[in-house]
Amino acid sequence: MDEFDFIRERLAPLARGAPGARGLSDDAATLAPPAGCELVVTADALVAGVHFRQADPLDGVAAKALRVNLSDLAAKGADPIGYLLSIVWPRDCPRTDMERFVAGLADDQARYGVSLLGGDTTSGPGPLVIAITAFGSVPEGRMVTRAGARPGDAVFVTGTVGDAGLGLRALGHELTRVSAPDRVALERRYLAPEPRVDAARALRDLAHAAIDVSDGLVADAGHIAQTSGARLVIEALSIPLSAAARAWLGAEPDKAAAMSKLATSGDDYEILFCAPPEAGAEVARRSGVPVTRIGRVEAGQGVALLGPGGAPIPVARGGFTHF
Amino acid sequence: MDEFDFIRERLAPLARGAPGARGLSDDAATLAPPAGCELVVTADALVAGVHFRQADPLDGVAAKALRVNLSDLAAKGADPIGYLLSIVWPRDCPRTDMERFVAGLADDQARYGVSLLGGDTTSGPGPLVIAITAFGSVPEGRMVTRAGARPGDAVFVTGTVGDAGLGLRALGHELTRVSAPDRVALERRYLAPEPRVDAARALRDLAHAAIDVSDGLVADAGHIAQTSGARLVIEALSIPLSAAARAWLGAEPDKAAAMSKLATSGDDYEILFCAPPEAGAEVARRSGVPVTRIGRVEAGQGVALLGPGGAPIPVARGGFTHF
Repeated sequence: MDEFDFIRERLAPLARGAPGARGLSDDAATLAPPAGCELVVTADALVAGVHFRQADPLDGVAAKALRVNLSDLAAKGADPIGYLLSIVWPRDCPRTDMERFVAGLADDQARYGVSLLGGDTTSGPGPLVIAITAFGSVPEGRMVTRAGARPGDAVFVTGTVGDAGLGLRALGHELTRVSAPDRVALERRYLAPEPRVDAARALRDLAHAAIDVSDGLVADAGHIAQTSGARLVIEALSIPLSAAARAWLGAEPDKAAAMSKLATSGDDYEILFCAPPEAGAEVARRSGVPVTRIGRVEAGQGVALLGPGGAPIPVARGGFTHF
Repeated sequence: MDEFDFIRERLAPLARGAPGARGLSDDAATLAPPAGCELVVTADALVAGVHFRQADPLDGVAAKALRVNLSDLAAKGADPIGYLLSIVWPRDCPRTDMERFVAGLADDQARYGVSLLGGDTTSGPGPLVIAITAFGSVPEGRMVTRAGARPGDAVFVTGTVGDAGLGLRALGHELTRVSAPDRVALERRYLAPEPRVDAARALRDLAHAAIDVSDGLVADAGHIAQTSGARLVIEALSIPLSAAARAWLGAEPDKAAAMSKLATSGDDYEILFCAPPEAGAEVARRSGVPVTRIGRVEAGQGVALLGPGGAPIPVARGGFTHF
């Protein structure tokens, strides 16, 4: 099966939902936002050995590559439309792996209502690289940015924080004191993040600023603080934790260091947002997504993580950086 | 310099021309086509050691990565707008190389009137990977596809064909009988292709089908033949050759085999198009781009490459495939 056969037989079916993709039979796709809307575009690339483990099954890897992009759209208040996919296969990639990759995309397309619009497939001497550009739409001028947080806003986060980081450590056999069911739950958060697409509409109506938690809660709060020109104060005791993360925390001798780890580990793909204090409950009610208030926005700059009694918790590193 | 510093200091200046890019300070960009237009989107990834040589200077590599995408837009009749860039740096990439890469993009942005809209930077254990998604616009419904060629059309190509393939061989010291100035000219075609952006408007007014010549003239003609459900007949003696390619051809003992090589080597980034016989001169007049008639469209399927007297020239392989 050569490059063109693979596109025609395996990838083209993924483009059926998008007329502008022309069945992947052309060099480009056409795309227009719905009337009164503009497109929101984002790109994220995943590299084997960096963003996922070489041994991870490729259906899950494909899904993760798509989901991290859908997570960005959700945080920006955008309804997802579709995506372009550029893949660099490793030279010896078995055909069954390539088919498993496509199956993972097919499942997620049905789940999230998006279509493949086009892209590029090639192979190279290095690890698998998956570069996705995702497209969503918002009513004109309504994208939720990082820049709108203002003093008086509350800081909210969806779901629970820190699970994916623990899951990655569990996969590396670093978490010895965690029960088997907890380990499975944590690993799943790392391997199969669930982007908060259901929250997009409520966020664009109610949030002043938002970002998805990919670099880590503190680092991503820092991105909002920097772009908004404000200070985000986060109360560690308010950070929502899963039952598995609470069990792990309970067995850690140094609680402050453990909380700092949870607040700085990446890959959760929850949404951190700043909005008037009453907006959190409204986002939760309208979207069905759990929302927790974890802090406040003040005049100033940077991020403070406060422990019991308001004492600052030292943060070892601001978050994940790729250099 | 970490990932965020590099984005802020080096890449953000490339986004100044695009308000929707928000200075790369957010997770996504907003984009809307001009009134009455739709977006044309295309993605092409380049991998070190596959699409360019490991030793190639990175300003030229960056320019080539952008230009191959602009070439797709031009062939589709689209006016370029901007692009998203996902880069996977090799882990030991020197900072001077990264800065040279950015300088190459800056030069080409000015040359082609496009802006960086966003993207992703990371690093990995493999070779440099550059994945670009380019955006252009056409009046609604006016993208030039591969599908519109019809019997009675003539087949045209811009510029000259086969130079980039010879250039690649020259860079590999495989062309011993070529003069020094010819070698420089051929190498330049491979290293620094010039996308035919000036032809976009005339093509969307006059061409029935078009494609850029990236896989090779015969392979790309084959893509049009397949998608249009027609047969493309190309006369080898009509294929436009540069002075350097003519000199190379003159010294080759087997002319038919040599012509076949020129007609199947990739990376020329000229535009092959099908249009009424009188349209070629009009495209040349309106765009200032040289256009040569090289054949005709008939009922049937596939591509025929005809030599002197109409005898078919065997084509060793249809073109370049990445698997």
